[in-house]
Amino acid sequence: MATQLRPDLEAEMQAIGRAARNAQRALADLPRDRKDLALRRAATALLAQSEAILEANARDMEEARAKGLSPALLDRLALTPARIAAMARGLEDIADLPDPVGIELARWTRPNGLDIARVRVPLGVIGIIYESRPNVTADAAGLCLKAGNAAILRGGSESFHSSRAILAALREALDSTGIPAAAIQTVPTSDRAAVGVMLRMHEWIDVIVPRGGRALVERVYAESRIPVLAHLEGNCHVYLHAAADPEKAVNVTLNAKMRRTGICGAAETLLCDRAIAKTVLPRVLAALIEAGCEIRGDDTVRRIEPRAKAATEVDWATEYLDAIIAVRVVAGLEEAIAHIERWGSHHTDAIVTEDREAAETFLRRVDSAIVIHNASTQFADGGEFGMGAEIGIATGRLHARGPVGVEQLTTFKYVVRGNGQVRPL
Amino acid sequence: MATQLRPDLEAEMQAIGRAARNAQRALADLPRDRKDLALRRAATALLAQSEAILEANARDMEEARAKGLSPALLDRLALTPARIAAMARGLEDIADLPDPVGIELARWTRPNGLDIARVRVPLGVIGIIYESRPNVTADAAGLCLKAGNAAILRGGSESFHSSRAILAALREALDSTGIPAAAIQTVPTSDRAAVGVMLRMHEWIDVIVPRGGRALVERVYAESRIPVLAHLEGNCHVYLHAAADPEKAVNVTLNAKMRRTGICGAAETLLCDRAIAKTVLPRVLAALIEAGCEIRGDDTVRRIEPRAKAATEVDWATEYLDAIIAVRVVAGLEEAIAHIERWGSHHTDAIVTEDREAAETFLRRVDSAIVIHNASTQFADGGEFGMGAEIGIATGRLHARGPVGVEQLTTFKYVVRGNGQVRPL
Repeated sequence: MATQLRPDLEAEMQAIGRAARNAQRALADLPRDRKDLALRRAATALLAQSEAILEANARDMEEARAKGLSPALLDRLALTPARIAAMARGLEDIADLPDPVGIELARWTRPNGLDIARVRVPLGVIGIIYESRPNVTADAAGLCLKAGNAAILRGGSESFHSSRAILAALREALDSTGIPAAAIQTVPTSDRAAVGVMLRMHEWIDVIVPRGGRALVERVYAESRIPVLAHLEGNCHVYLHAAADPEKAVNVTLNAKMRRTGICGAAETLLCDRAIAKTVLPRVLAALIEAGCEIRGDDTVRRIEPRAKAATEVDWATEYLDAIIAVRVVAGLEEAIAHIERWGSHHTDAIVTEDREAAETFLRRVDSAIVIHNASTQFADGGEFGMGAEIGIATGRLHARGPVGVEQLTTFKYVVRGNGQVRPL
Repeated sequence: MATQLRPDLEAEMQAIGRAARNAQRALADLPRDRKDLALRRAATALLAQSEAILEANARDMEEARAKGLSPALLDRLALTPARIAAMARGLEDIADLPDPVGIELARWTRPNGLDIARVRVPLGVIGIIYESRPNVTADAAGLCLKAGNAAILRGGSESFHSSRAILAALREALDSTGIPAAAIQTVPTSDRAAVGVMLRMHEWIDVIVPRGGRALVERVYAESRIPVLAHLEGNCHVYLHAAADPEKAVNVTLNAKMRRTGICGAAETLLCDRAIAKTVLPRVLAALIEAGCEIRGDDTVRRIEPRAKAATEVDWATEYLDAIIAVRVVAGLEEAIAHIERWGSHHTDAIVTEDREAAETFLRRVDSAIVIHNASTQFADGGEFGMGAEIGIATGRLHARGPVGVEQLTTFKYVVRGNGQVRPL
């Protein structure tokens, strides 16, 4: 791959930031129909330019194979006509969402007659740093545009050519609807130093969204001078309470772990009350093993299920993203909550029980972005929440927690209307 | 002043953080009446322990005088029976506010029957770093407690003894209501290095609120690994549009600049349309000068008002916090908006006009936390907004923008209730 060394990287990045800010001022004031038209035209342009996009992707794939990338990474990188069609549909779906900008979240009048409104406005300039999947270019740009934000995209160096080709299609749609091209920019270099520069551009970038593996997100958290919306990991739990319905216990655990093992909402640890460790748990473990899941259990679990390997503390802390689950028997609700507090990542945690009171205690006390009663943790997804497309899931506590969709890519301001009021001394 | 050097500072701070996190878990689940009882008892304890607090303050004052602190700083540091009574009243007022925790912000049901609620929960552990005013100890602790948060307070070294005495009263109230004492902690050293340690404790502290001068806030922004709620400065504008009512122009400008010059919502720059530069502006400038305000104007302003000094670019960027105002004549609305975008600090900006359309354009396009039509910028205050006490004003774009009150010291989580739903493949 031709890494382009640029001595003037800093100045170039500052120019991108300044242009993004200017474009964002224009975007913030755009009516809904203009933004939606641009999104629909972008969808059309992606389809019309499929051939060029596939050619660019072939170049990326060739370089990636030469570098010896793993089959999993190659699959993430690969584009097909079907994947391009899915990107286009994603943009159409975003166009169909309501426009969050300009919505009055609250409005009240003060005794002195001041009329105060809290109004949704775009968040500003969003910096998105992602790894190999080139479709993020279209998804993230579409979400940002809908919410009136400018986007600065820094894709993985592996998807450099693909992302540029996708961007070219998006730019054409912006041009034809009179939206400044700088509304969506990509960093024009695959130099990794560009990420470092982005993370210090707090004058031009309002929030950073890293999408990728743990190493990427950790680097962003460590270096960023800009607020970050992200999750480091999803060490999600399913807790089978003493009053769990056995059928739901099996179905929810199996789905939470095995529907897809590679997503952040996949369960990684199963907790089970001692009271049902010899009745319900064996059925759950048998179903997992039958589905191809490796069990790593504590001593009690291994007595119940001899096929289980021994779990160590490392397992309680591990997000496998694979067909492996850690299993621990607990004394009851308090111990389960304490385990999740100690080892969890505040992403998504579920309880299975028919005991309403136990469920409500769990939902109230477990301090995670998403807490679930009697359903799979794999519902942790903006689409499943009915929020539309999302740019990721956030486990930080500020601003956006859980799915980060179009609404979460906005902020608000206070609009105060008076008739000459002054503040008394 | 006896700076206490502590080689074990890091370990001590980590212990404080861990204790705060544990206390916060207990606080999060407290019913409203327990929190409010603690707040009312804290108010009573402050009054009951006035003598000890005043004695501690006398020690601080003596040391401050010996160090040669300015009269303004000495005034901020000084406590009187009246100031202690005001602190106690502040805590009573916080007790009277509605409890934000547990409120359902939204709730909906998905086609598959999943019941999804977005519920307000405490923000977590709040680190507050402030300068000389000892009353912040009570105000900030009270706001944090009300919202179910633990607080780690780091007051200015000048107010070390006063803050400890105030904390002793607060602790007594916590004890007597069975709330863990670690809900409110102060950093037990006046060593400045403690601030550096706090800013890296992202495992234990969820948000940092710096309250103080520009140097403090800049340091916090630069060093913090934790999200920050703050404003660096309030370079607020009043813009007199061509259609301004002359009476309102005089009253609003005078109040915005001169009611109190030292607060962040005070106006620092006056913009005036050329169309009224010879009619309305002279009256406004004369009123300002009569009230003791220095004018620093551009050439046009100096032709109109010979007593005005010459303004340079530095003036457009300066938050005087003093009886000085920068004045510039602009061609119209677009130039005013561009000036505010270029030089403002996105805090609070006002337009004076009888032209509704111009006002709405200004309110929509000026990208500040608070935008105001026909009223003084000095209304930028949580109390004036009807939000109750505030811990400060935030000009960042994420989470809390504008006044940071009890509601802004919360976050939310998603509570999902199902009956066995699993996600289809």
